[in-house]
Amino acid sequence: MASSTDPEFAAKEATLPPKSLAKSDVPPPRRSNCSVVDVALRVLLFSATLVAIILMVTSEESKIVPILSVKRSAKFTHSPAFIYFVVAMAVACFYSIITILASILATLKPTFHKKFLLHFAFLDVLILGLVASATGAAGGVGYIGLKGNNHVQWMKVCSTYDKFCRHIGSSTALALFAAVVLVLLSMLSTYSLHKRIRD
Amino acid sequence: MASSTDPEFAAKEATLPPKSLAKSDVPPPRRSNCSVVDVALRVLLFSATLVAIILMVTSEESKIVPILSVKRSAKFTHSPAFIYFVVAMAVACFYSIITILASILATLKPTFHKKFLLHFAFLDVLILGLVASATGAAGGVGYIGLKGNNHVQWMKVCSTYDKFCRHIGSSTALALFAAVVLVLLSMLSTYSLHKRIRD
Repeated sequence: MASSTDPEFAAKEATLPPKSLAKSDVPPPRRSNCSVVDVALRVLLFSATLVAIILMVTSEESKIVPILSVKRSAKFTHSPAFIYFVVAMAVACFYSIITILASILATLKPTFHKKFLLHFAFLDVLILGLVASATGAAGGVGYIGLKGNNHVQWMKVCSTYDKFCRHIGSSTALALFAAVVLVLLSMLSTYSLHKRIRD
Repeated sequence: MASSTDPEFAAKEATLPPKSLAKSDVPPPRRSNCSVVDVALRVLLFSATLVAIILMVTSEESKIVPILSVKRSAKFTHSPAFIYFVVAMAVACFYSIITILASILATLKPTFHKKFLLHFAFLDVLILGLVASATGAAGGVGYIGLKGNNHVQWMKVCSTYDKFCRHIGSSTALALFAAVVLVLLSMLSTYSLHKRIRD
């Protein structure tokens, strides 16, 4: 066993960096991976919500009703559920822009990481609630538009306004995708916190 | 300074419990508080989802339509959005029963706490997505029933079936409350994990 008075051991020890310095100098690779996945998911969230808003806003369609010979239009502002959907997606889109910038900053400066992690985990859950409820509302109303409801004599709308319905359907599907991304983001934030306990 | 050969110091050291034992013997009071709040919130979630299901299932109402002199009934199975709502609430209710038991077990045996904490945080987020989307769907369809939509000639239903609509409205409000409880539960799980890093 090498004693502390052994000159060979002393020389070896002098060449090694101090333990605390070695820890801060070498970035933990798994945390950095988490940050990259975090940024990628937030970019996906931004793209999905932005395209969902564009599709919903540009869904307006005008048709001449054959029986009445009157031009009638269908647009998202005709339904409160679709207005709520656009507002919720706009909030999620704005939130994703802020968190992309914050997440990039956290990747570049790991000291920020800990601060942001908890706030992100809290806010991700709130935005998930908003996006999921908006998806449900738009999906519920959109389904009546597609299939109608004979029990209460609500006629289907999609047989007349096909472009409008295509836009609504695609927009709702993208919102569902955004909700799944938000679930993954919340799980990632929680997992990152959990990993810090183990490390 | 007392040296390791000092007999007084040696006697003092012998009477003190080992460090690791002292840590496990004294329960951290803040963590225990979190567990109590966790159980309380899960009981609230169970109550809210159970009452929401009962209200939705018992919403059936039959009325004689004056013009047609035909008995017509309104029930939740007439709308796919309400069926989805009942299924989602049933899943959330079942989940709340399991997690109440697990949470009580974690409070009694703190060794289980760490294991459950991460799984709870993951599953709470998933169930939140389910409950929020079901609330949105039921709310969206319920709103059309209440106010109608003149643009697509969907008549209001609530002027005829008032009991049915009261049940749907109360059920949706309880689902919204359950979603808020789930947001708080997710935040609590994340906060508990964050607190473990600080402690």
